[in-house]
Amino acid sequence: MKAKGIQRFLPFTDWLFNYQKKNLQGDISAGLTVGVMLIPQGMAYSMLAGLPPIYGLYASITPLILYALFGTSRQLAVGPVAMVALLIAAGVGQVAETGSNEFIALAIILALMVGVFQLLLGLLRLGFLVNFLSHPIISGFTSAAALIIGFSQLKHLLGLDIPRSNFIHRILIDAFSNLNEVHFYTFLVGVSGMITILLLKRFSKTIPGPLVAVILGILVVYLLGLDATGVKIVKEVPEGLPSLSIPSLNLDQIRMLLPTALVISLIGFMESIAVAKAIQAKHRDYEVDSNQELIGLGIANIGGSLFQSFPTTGGFSRTAVNDQAGANTGLASIISAVLIALTLLFLTPLFYYLPKAILASVIMVAVFGLIDFKEAIHLWKSDKKDFFMLLATFVATLSLGIEEGIGIGVVLSLVWVIYRSAYPHIAELANIPNTKYYRNIKRFPELHRENGVLIVRFDAQLFFANINFFRDKVNEMIQCREDKIELLILDFAAVNEIDSSALHMLHEFHRDMDERDIAVKITSLRGPVRDKFELSGIFECFGKDNFYLQISEAIYHFKNKERSIDTQYATQSGH
Amino acid sequence: MKAKGIQRFLPFTDWLFNYQKKNLQGDISAGLTVGVMLIPQGMAYSMLAGLPPIYGLYASITPLILYALFGTSRQLAVGPVAMVALLIAAGVGQVAETGSNEFIALAIILALMVGVFQLLLGLLRLGFLVNFLSHPIISGFTSAAALIIGFSQLKHLLGLDIPRSNFIHRILIDAFSNLNEVHFYTFLVGVSGMITILLLKRFSKTIPGPLVAVILGILVVYLLGLDATGVKIVKEVPEGLPSLSIPSLNLDQIRMLLPTALVISLIGFMESIAVAKAIQAKHRDYEVDSNQELIGLGIANIGGSLFQSFPTTGGFSRTAVNDQAGANTGLASIISAVLIALTLLFLTPLFYYLPKAILASVIMVAVFGLIDFKEAIHLWKSDKKDFFMLLATFVATLSLGIEEGIGIGVVLSLVWVIYRSAYPHIAELANIPNTKYYRNIKRFPELHRENGVLIVRFDAQLFFANINFFRDKVNEMIQCREDKIELLILDFAAVNEIDSSALHMLHEFHRDMDERDIAVKITSLRGPVRDKFELSGIFECFGKDNFYLQISEAIYHFKNKERSIDTQYATQSGH
Repeated sequence: MKAKGIQRFLPFTDWLFNYQKKNLQGDISAGLTVGVMLIPQGMAYSMLAGLPPIYGLYASITPLILYALFGTSRQLAVGPVAMVALLIAAGVGQVAETGSNEFIALAIILALMVGVFQLLLGLLRLGFLVNFLSHPIISGFTSAAALIIGFSQLKHLLGLDIPRSNFIHRILIDAFSNLNEVHFYTFLVGVSGMITILLLKRFSKTIPGPLVAVILGILVVYLLGLDATGVKIVKEVPEGLPSLSIPSLNLDQIRMLLPTALVISLIGFMESIAVAKAIQAKHRDYEVDSNQELIGLGIANIGGSLFQSFPTTGGFSRTAVNDQAGANTGLASIISAVLIALTLLFLTPLFYYLPKAILASVIMVAVFGLIDFKEAIHLWKSDKKDFFMLLATFVATLSLGIEEGIGIGVVLSLVWVIYRSAYPHIAELANIPNTKYYRNIKRFPELHRENGVLIVRFDAQLFFANINFFRDKVNEMIQCREDKIELLILDFAAVNEIDSSALHMLHEFHRDMDERDIAVKITSLRGPVRDKFELSGIFECFGKDNFYLQISEAIYHFKNKERSIDTQYATQSGH
Repeated sequence: MKAKGIQRFLPFTDWLFNYQKKNLQGDISAGLTVGVMLIPQGMAYSMLAGLPPIYGLYASITPLILYALFGTSRQLAVGPVAMVALLIAAGVGQVAETGSNEFIALAIILALMVGVFQLLLGLLRLGFLVNFLSHPIISGFTSAAALIIGFSQLKHLLGLDIPRSNFIHRILIDAFSNLNEVHFYTFLVGVSGMITILLLKRFSKTIPGPLVAVILGILVVYLLGLDATGVKIVKEVPEGLPSLSIPSLNLDQIRMLLPTALVISLIGFMESIAVAKAIQAKHRDYEVDSNQELIGLGIANIGGSLFQSFPTTGGFSRTAVNDQAGANTGLASIISAVLIALTLLFLTPLFYYLPKAILASVIMVAVFGLIDFKEAIHLWKSDKKDFFMLLATFVATLSLGIEEGIGIGVVLSLVWVIYRSAYPHIAELANIPNTKYYRNIKRFPELHRENGVLIVRFDAQLFFANINFFRDKVNEMIQCREDKIELLILDFAAVNEIDSSALHMLHEFHRDMDERDIAVKITSLRGPVRDKFELSGIFECFGKDNFYLQISEAIYHFKNKERSIDTQYATQSGH
């Protein structure tokens, strides 16, 4: 059921040209719901990214339409998201002053760079790169980022004028040392906003809490004249749609933004593909293709940057809402975009009195839900190693920085892969009485060894990093046995790959065992290993007759000097 | 038979305090033979390292004695070696002018740094790090280094005054553009030296070619007065033993030498441990311990640097000679060192007329033997991937530099490990008629599939980098089958490890298959995987009854609704 030809590169041809009327009601309802959500969220995430709120609305038009045309998911709701906004603030903040015109221009250039990266990754079919972000790394990073995002809004919630920072301890020190300057009304508005959103979240599935908070916030400030007391408000929001303007590029700036662009490309894609696949699994009437997703998001970001949009991606919560509200095709997203466009054309004056504390409360409620204690506790119980990976990423993100944190997480998990392959599991096996099965004697101590026979199972590919470990371990096992070993059986069922260094080692190993009068038999060879054995002369070295499909056969042959099954199945290679 | 207590840290206590008279003859004969070899080699490698020849003799005393006391091999011949000399020249050459007093001082400091590194690596039991140098990487690097070393001697062989370089193309360009300045007598002496060494190597096992070439060279130059015609000679060689002098350290220099010291520590150790293990395998009356070897080499280098020695390690050819000449214990090395000391005390005036072209010929003959075509050809036939690893390391070493070359080789081989684990082998299995065995249907196309049953074997650990690959592949296999799949059997015999990301995936995968009415059964679980299944609730999720020791059992149970063997052995974990 893979999409073919034009449908693969222009996925919308599938749903748009065969649009079915029965899908329309769901699409309209979902499109309007998500559009209504997008108004407060877009403005809030824009503030989080360090831009004026209006840019969040700009970023909620072009990318949505383009993704609907070129993306493969039919429910994914693209637009501003918290994690990407945080990365924009951190990355562009290093190059320009937050909120300045240069900052805005750079955030838009960043969208272009992210788009180009994603498009290239998609065209080069490198979507698999995202596989190297493991679950614990993502969880640790997300929790840390959520904390950083949440605390970054503290100043808006308390009405404090403290410098922006990506380090929580700095924010807390600054906040505490200015505690006497907390603006009470601002604080009251912000906390009321949070309570409103949380209550509506709890007791109603249909009423959008953030929008209610925004409306109530505007009304309260306007009616009570709170802005005069010092409650910060959004003020003038320019009317009209974003204009077409090609970002002017500067090589130095591009070089400085490069790491940020790369991180946003991958993190943004990862968040998006995760939710797209989760939703697709429920529907099954279309396919989500990783590389086409990269192309779709890339085009959305490139096109967006031409219409004053900062980097966007598919967001978790809005996609879930889109799906629940009945979205059937990309038309829902297009309807959301139209709603935002209408808002920009006619409703911007209404946002004049919107208090920033309300936007901060929208952000804080959204991100604190991302802090994932459950996963950490689950890992602590089931996989200590992965727990420490999560913890290391979490701590590194909080203490060293956002991009550094995810970088350290990825490097740690790759180092672990290599370390683990260098010291794999190795087991001595013994027979389960009256069966042909053999199990690890350490796990089943009731099993008995056979005199003079050592059966070893090596549970990893055999390659340069573990050949010394293999040889040392087998020698140790031979020496630890009290009986004189006459037969060594190597169960290679789990040796799924072998390299030339290991083949060298096996030649020497065989000569070694030969000198010590130990017969070596090898069982359960995998195809790729058989091929290498054939090419490198291991079969001749050990003798083809010493290879078996199973341990029981090797033992049978050793005792009875005759085989029950032909060597062919144990040694045939594809060469 | 592992060494215990004091013997482990002072290995010489084992052979020295129980010295057996029968070992003496072999030790004396080997000690003298290696000592005689060391005179020309030490001077030649010192020249290669960029130091005056005398330092090669200094480096042939203290390190030999210290290694004999603290090393675990009884035949290893420590001292100056070509590869380390090349690394000294390349590394120190970046910081000081070759041959200058500063250069000499830095080479001695480098020995101290290498010694400290090796000692620390040994004490921290990090000897395993050397496992990450795979066979093809070592082979490619060695061949390239041998070429660089050989060509670096061209100027001495031709009597040309061209600048030192680690890039062959530069040397060749310089040599060709100065071809009219080739000094004919120098060339004649050098080529005669090479022919002498090669002929003696071929036709006599006992007469040391390099020493004969040195003696003949001295005689010819002295008798014919060739030095007057312009043949470069060694001239004054200071008499007497190296003096105790603590190297004066400078933080800046240390920082600059740090990468070189690290590379020499590892490459030197690798060369040494490889030959030590090879020789030990012949004897078996003692053990070679990697970490104690690092400690022994470390102490040898630290002690050496206090007595004007540059970095040394165990050499391949001299160790082989030492063993063949009958070395039984470390006493042989001590005798070699005494012979060098006597040479320094009484024989240095004899080296006045030694032509540098002869030293060049000693080096060239020694290293061109290291160029390993056979391995490259073997890999081309048996393992294309490893062939390209070799080639990449070879080309990178020649074109980018010596340390860069080995660095690129190591990084490439680690990237390959990770890439390979992300895209492992996966096979659909079918039954061999009238047996309980199942084999890959692609390799044995004569086997028949059972209707409605898909049997998949996944040949790798299941972890974050390959979970998407696993899921996509299994889904693809289900879709490619023409029959409706009712039963999916996952053979996990080769899944030797599983991480939390993969466990998450399996939960989703099970829900997925359940929705599609496909029963999932898993066979041949390994212990470490069983443990994780237990802790993460996979057994409950899939149902304990769906785990089997072998595929045939799973099929039997599916058809007959009764089991032939208890689930216990298939699901028992250590928790």
